[in-house]
Amino acid sequence: MAQVEEQVSNKQVLAAGHITGNPKQTDMYLQSSTISLQLPPEASSDAVLVKNLYLSCDPYMRGTNKTNTKRLFYSFSPDSLIIGYGVCKVLDSKHPDFKKGDLVWGVTKWEEYSIITMTDSLFKIEHTDVPLSYYTGILGMPGMTAYAGFYEVGVPKKGDYVFISSAFGAVGQLVGQLAKLMGCYVVGSAGSKDKVEILKSKFGFDGAFNYKEEQDLDATLKRFFPEGIDIYFDNVGGDMLEAALLNMRRRGRIVVAGMISQYDLDEPQGIKNLVNIIYKQIRVEAYTVYDYYHLYPKFLEIILPYIREGKITYVEDIAEGLESGPAALEAMFTGRSAGKQVVLVAHE
Amino acid sequence: MAQVEEQVSNKQVLAAGHITGNPKQTDMYLQSSTISLQLPPEASSDAVLVKNLYLSCDPYMRGTNKTNTKRLFYSFSPDSLIIGYGVCKVLDSKHPDFKKGDLVWGVTKWEEYSIITMTDSLFKIEHTDVPLSYYTGILGMPGMTAYAGFYEVGVPKKGDYVFISSAFGAVGQLVGQLAKLMGCYVVGSAGSKDKVEILKSKFGFDGAFNYKEEQDLDATLKRFFPEGIDIYFDNVGGDMLEAALLNMRRRGRIVVAGMISQYDLDEPQGIKNLVNIIYKQIRVEAYTVYDYYHLYPKFLEIILPYIREGKITYVEDIAEGLESGPAALEAMFTGRSAGKQVVLVAHE
Repeated sequence: MAQVEEQVSNKQVLAAGHITGNPKQTDMYLQSSTISLQLPPEASSDAVLVKNLYLSCDPYMRGTNKTNTKRLFYSFSPDSLIIGYGVCKVLDSKHPDFKKGDLVWGVTKWEEYSIITMTDSLFKIEHTDVPLSYYTGILGMPGMTAYAGFYEVGVPKKGDYVFISSAFGAVGQLVGQLAKLMGCYVVGSAGSKDKVEILKSKFGFDGAFNYKEEQDLDATLKRFFPEGIDIYFDNVGGDMLEAALLNMRRRGRIVVAGMISQYDLDEPQGIKNLVNIIYKQIRVEAYTVYDYYHLYPKFLEIILPYIREGKITYVEDIAEGLESGPAALEAMFTGRSAGKQVVLVAHE
Repeated sequence: MAQVEEQVSNKQVLAAGHITGNPKQTDMYLQSSTISLQLPPEASSDAVLVKNLYLSCDPYMRGTNKTNTKRLFYSFSPDSLIIGYGVCKVLDSKHPDFKKGDLVWGVTKWEEYSIITMTDSLFKIEHTDVPLSYYTGILGMPGMTAYAGFYEVGVPKKGDYVFISSAFGAVGQLVGQLAKLMGCYVVGSAGSKDKVEILKSKFGFDGAFNYKEEQDLDATLKRFFPEGIDIYFDNVGGDMLEAALLNMRRRGRIVVAGMISQYDLDEPQGIKNLVNIIYKQIRVEAYTVYDYYHLYPKFLEIILPYIREGKITYVEDIAEGLESGPAALEAMFTGRSAGKQVVLVAHE
């Protein structure tokens, strides 16, 4: 007779329907299912069963515009589990690289326990003298996004003039601090007076402005960058990109991490100032963190000492309990999170 | 008593007035002055006196749009000598790197004899087993432009899908042939049926089309590149760039050598498809040959054997006599030249 595995309750967060644009709390619902805490015999040979400890709320977790379904970053299928980055503890594994008790970070699901088969995107956590939740942010995907974009795509040098849009985001904050540590002049844009103040007082930016209060972004950039911009770290596209194109220095680099202003438009905005790349020999380069994960060990070598020595400021906003996940995700998109938005599912 | 230097006649081509857009023959006039064939004692310590042998007609030699004077590529001041690339013989020199009898190429003036003080842009000609006139084209600035753009900016690899706009130009022709020699699939666009035929039959392009006969450039590119484009070598910008952006492959590279379609517009065309760089992690990079001249020796090592072995096809259209210069320059812009347009001023 087959052994009857003990089943435990497994709370889950699912999408209520097709989500367009930024998800709202009411776009998701909770349900309870059950799961065995041992992998079933039929599980694939690289499957890992994990207990989810922290889940990450990130800006890419948004629905596609229905009129632009080709522009697929992330989709929420009705009644399917929300997928996202998290920190997890391995409970059972058929994968040779992971064993019971390992701590990992990578792509998991919004539930208490998950079977992960896409183990390519799992990283073993070797350093636990820093908070585990950091592996959803500064030590995880957003951290690698900042590192790869700034160092590998931006190719910065000491003294460079660096401008960051959406600078208060998890990625922007880190790019700014890495740039300061390298000896660059750093200015960021954000969407509120409070964020602007924090960028300057807490994150050490040389300057910051609230883009919502600026009438003429070209004039704003000329005010902050009388010598021009060497690196523009672009998260927004649109009008800010237009203004930056007018203010780049010769051989400047525009690192395109996102164009959030464009995704919900039925037809994207035409960029009239692109021709300026000719006059100044500018490089405009978009990238994805997935192409740079091989540099993760190198990244840790640089970033861990900065964290341990307190040279980098990192703020989290931790919502407690899986059931707080939908509200936390909405809060991240509406700018209400007081730091990197994390959901604490369970303590180790 | 000061020695009286013998003066010789020096025919010159000058701009008749401010030239807007493509120069016409009637925008220039000839005059005759005199010059001594020895440098005057007051000449600067790096001055070189040369006899101009060949002068080059190149697409950058156009007037700026009056409404867009900031976009300065090249200006023709009224009653000033036309400036351009040429092949010259040194008659006298104060410069330690150049001596009487040396053959050089670089920036000179449209006249029979010139005193050159901007000697940074002069290169000594070491290889004379190839036609001297080649140093105005395939072995000079246009050749280096093709080489730097394709190899250094495009970073090609065997099997890449390469698209070249304005492919019949001196630069485009060479980019296409370098790409074929590397084992790429190469398609070019040009502005006439004849040019399209020559690109295929003579320059070995895998495909070519007359952009004037295409109704939907996106569909055209999809027809020639069902797998997408790895490298787009852009000389034109505008609608062709829009179409290319829709057809780039992941991590594709758009090498921007020019945006000729945009220079004469009062307001440049907005590029709506730029947001596609995010979805495919595309790099768009503009460059100028001036940043790559340090690679000239490396370039010669590659290109000279190709020429000697007949692996590269190169066609010139040589107009005889300095007085034919204005008509030759107009012909180059109207697409009437039968090859790289050169003006023969004097035999060695």
